[in-house]
Formats: sequence, structure tokens, C-alpha cells
Amino acid sequence: MKKFKITVEYCPKCKWMLRAAWIAQELLITFEEEIDEISLKPSGISGIFRLYVDDKVAFDRKENGGFAEPKRYKQLIRDHVNPLKSLGHSEH
Amino acid sequence: MKKFKITVEYCPKCKWMLRAAWIAQELLITFEEEIDEISLKPSGISGIFRLYVDDKVAFDRKENGGFAEPKRYKQLIRDHVNPLKSLGHSEH
Repeated sequence: MKKFKITVEYCPKCKWMLRAAWIAQELLITFEEEIDEISLKPSGISGIFRLYVDDKVAFDRKENGGFAEPKRYKQLIRDHVNPLKSLGHSEH
Repeated sequence: MKKFKITVEYCPKCKWMLRAAWIAQELLITFEEEIDEISLKPSGISGIFRLYVDDKVAFDRKENGGFAEPKRYKQLIRDHVNPLKSLGHSEH
């Protein structure tokens, strides 16, 4: 089964490192079988917060008009890495 | 200034994901200028816990005879990414 690289690109000046690390841990727990590695990537772009699957943008804070709930991040990642995977009752 | 990729390869079956994420955050705080990205990489190798700078092993749990203190991880990374950098009084 192909495994994916997830990247969490974030604005460190906005103090979003802890949030990026938290989301990375949530995704590692939910997608342990599907993730090859998950990368935290501080960016010089002010206000940026993006999730990538390999090189595709799965979530963009500005496009989304702000952050999302964990459930939403997981649905977006799931649609890329394992579309048929159920996220279970805890994420409905 | 060249920026580096750090990889924290860990054994998820050993429940070391939280430890790997914690060390990644410590390194992101200390080496914000030197790090391009820091990657959490679950491994199928039982008992593995390694830090890489780009593709060089900077720390190996088995070779080290166990885990180390944060100070030690930071010294080892510093020696790769910015040998003249002082880690400050909090890490002495």
C-alpha cells in the first residue's frame, strides 16, 4: 500500500508551531498505516497554514477562511490517502 | 544560510510518537533559523529511535544505549547545523 508524505506548513511568527505539531500528532494516530512521514515546515509567508499530501494542497487556511476542526482536517486527508476509510464515530 | 531537514524516526508500536513530537517541537524552537522542515517518521523497525540531519544519523537510541536528555539532542543537532551556535544557559 502506498504511503504518503503529509506536510504542515505554518507561520511561526503567528505562534502556530504548537497547533501544527498537535495536528501532526492527530493525523499520525488516525492515519498510522497511510503516512510515511509527516513534516512540520516553518514558513516565511505570514499567516500561512497549509496541509499538503505529497505535493497537493489539501487545506489552506486563507482559502478556508480560517482554521478548521480536527474532523475536517482528517476528512480532507482521508479523501487523499484512503477515500474509503471510515474515520469512526469519534470524528462524526 | 543553508537550512536542514531533520527527521525523527521512531517505533510507533513502542508508543514513542508523543516523545518524537515533543523533541521535534523542542528542536523547532531552538533551531527555527536552521530548520527547513522536521519530519516525524513512524518506522516498522522495532525499538528504533533516530535523529537524522538531512541523511546523516545524528543520534541512535541503540548506539547511545537509550534515550538522552533534551540538551544532548540539541548539542548533536547543533554540531551538524550550526557548530558555533551557543545553546544558551537553559541548555547547559
